[in-house]
Formats: sequence, C-alpha cells, structure tokens
Amino acid sequence: MKDIFKSYLNTNYRITDDTAEIIFSLLTPKKIKRGTILLKQGEYHPYIFFVTSGCLRSYIIDKRGKTHTLGFAPEKWWLGDHFSLLRKEPAMFSIDAVEDTELLMADQYFFEKMPAIYDGFHGQCLRHLAKHTRIMEKRILSLLGAYGDEQYVNFMMTYPELTLRLRQSMIASYLGISRESLSRIRSKLAQHRSSAG
Amino acid sequence: MKDIFKSYLNTNYRITDDTAEIIFSLLTPKKIKRGTILLKQGEYHPYIFFVTSGCLRSYIIDKRGKTHTLGFAPEKWWLGDHFSLLRKEPAMFSIDAVEDTELLMADQYFFEKMPAIYDGFHGQCLRHLAKHTRIMEKRILSLLGAYGDEQYVNFMMTYPELTLRLRQSMIASYLGISRESLSRIRSKLAQHRSSAG
Repeated sequence: MKDIFKSYLNTNYRITDDTAEIIFSLLTPKKIKRGTILLKQGEYHPYIFFVTSGCLRSYIIDKRGKTHTLGFAPEKWWLGDHFSLLRKEPAMFSIDAVEDTELLMADQYFFEKMPAIYDGFHGQCLRHLAKHTRIMEKRILSLLGAYGDEQYVNFMMTYPELTLRLRQSMIASYLGISRESLSRIRSKLAQHRSSAG
Repeated sequence: MKDIFKSYLNTNYRITDDTAEIIFSLLTPKKIKRGTILLKQGEYHPYIFFVTSGCLRSYIIDKRGKTHTLGFAPEKWWLGDHFSLLRKEPAMFSIDAVEDTELLMADQYFFEKMPAIYDGFHGQCLRHLAKHTRIMEKRILSLLGAYGDEQYVNFMMTYPELTLRLRQSMIASYLGISRESLSRIRSKLAQHRSSAG
C-alpha cells in the first residue's frame, strides 16, 4: 500500500522519500470488501479516499430507488465529496467498493497539515481539481449528446483500466444509457476496428 | 465595473480596500456586445473571465453543427477553461456573450502574482473550484435523470437570476432536452405552484 502511494507521489509531485513517509503517516489505511459502503448520501463523513488497489464508485439512489453512477476511482485516483468536507455539510452522494479495495483515508487534519509539509500542496490540489473538472466537463457534454457514440470511447479514455473490469451494467449506468444501447455501441466499435485493421 | 468587483471581494474574501485596488489593477476590463465570441474551441486563449454585468455562455459545436451548452456565467461568476490555462493547451469549448457584457480578464500573470498579494488565494481558489465541482456533479446527476422534472428546479437554483433572462431554447440546450419538454415541465411546475398556493 505504502509503495503504491509513494510511487504515486514520486511520479506526480517530485517529493523526497522522507517527505513521502511523513505524508503517508498522516493517512489511515483501510482494506474493504467489495460492496462495502464507505460514505452514505445525507451523512457527514469527513474523508477523501486514495485507492491503492481495487475500485470505488460514487453514486446516488433517487426517489424511485434507481442508482445513478457519478464516477469511479480505480488505483491511484482520489475520491470523496470535497464540497461536503470543506463546508462540513452532509454528503450529496454515496461511495462504495465495486471490487475488494485497499485505500488510504485523508481527513480534515491531513488537509490542514499538508501545506506546511509540502510547499506546493495547494497548487497541486488546484491542478488536480482542474483535471477533475475537465473529466466532468467532458462527461456533461457526452451526456448532452455532443459526442454521439464516442461517449463510450470517452469512458475508455477516462478509465482505460476499468473497461474490462467493470460489469456492463455499471458502465451503462455511468453513461446514462441502457445495457442494450451499450452492447450496440460496443459491437459497432468492434466492427469498425476490424474493418479498419 | 470596479465597484461590483470590489463588493464581490469584500463579501467573499474580507479583503481591504487597498488590496482590492491592487487586485483590480491586475485585471483587464472589457466591454463586449451580445454575440461576441471571447474564446474559440481548439484555440489557446489564456484568460479567465469575471463578469460584472451581462452574461457569458460556454458551449461546444459538435461534428454535425449542433450547439451544446456547458454553462453560463452571469454577474459575479468566473468563467474560463482552467485546464487549458494550466496546461497551456487549446481550449475544449468556446465562450460567447449571450447579453451585452462587461467583464474583467485574468491572465497567467494574475494567477502568478495573486498568492503574494493575498495570502489565502490558493485556498479560496480551492473552495471556488469545489463549489464549481458541486454544480457539475448536480448537473451530471440531473442529465442521468436522477432528479426527474426537478432538473429545471436545479437550473433555477444554480442560476436564479437567469431563469427569466435567457431564451427558452438556451435553457433547454443546457438541460439537454427539447423546447417542448421544457414547456411541459414549466407548465407542470406552474400548476403545482398555483395548487400549492
């Protein structure tokens, strides 16, 4: 768990090994089984999660009991309700594990301590949120129909490691389409590839 | 223009009048007519805009020539392609004025200078982006159908000042529905209100 986190820090933030050790010590490791709910919509749970193995999902359940998928977090992704953490408000969505998952939990104390430990922390958080914003902008445009059948290609580009790991129903829920439509898109794409190849 | 910006700073950031003057001097004021394009998708234009009056819109035009609305920025909102600015990449979307608009332009120099002028700058940017993230999360869930007819109510809560100012076609484009569907939702809401009142 520590190795993955340290390799993530070294690759993205050029942080010394000593600093990486201090940062790791501020986080709480946790191993959870597939299906475990980490955060429930409407409850206040002041943590942001960093996934070292497995995969988390954020989602809401609407009034009619239907599940809507907001996003996924495979290895080396962060996931949490930042707005809820900053405002000390109940979470807008739930988070659960779609695979057995190992993760690190960051609390308010982590975010308060980090700027003194790593000078560029806020700047990096901004870059991180800007990247997250881009993913969501693409998602919105995709849901508006701006990319037509390329919405599935966008999903594959956002989460290349998840395309073969997730159940089709989960990908369909993320794309806001039926499983039948997803099957059609995948067949079309496979045909296109074989005729192009 | 300066008064509106200073009142925005005082309300949100508890900044002294002298500091507000310095910050204002780092921005470039601009007055544009309705329909003016400020930023074109695919081009690099390193500015973020703060609206003091009027309204901006971000959008893309797809391969078939159809326009898809990403967002609006009325008075006291910021709008720009943050990811493009940070990465020095071409913009993913375009920005134009849907009304005659007065705005302030912030460039890379502004973002480099600000942390030295105002100590809490990065922290405030993070809070701002987290709020922006929340708006996008709600938008995604709304487009996935999680809120049913409440999607229009969400729009009104996000942009209360725009509900009566924008053309219906523009609101329908933001919601990803037809003008006819928007009319139906509005009628239903009006009926519900009159029967509730």
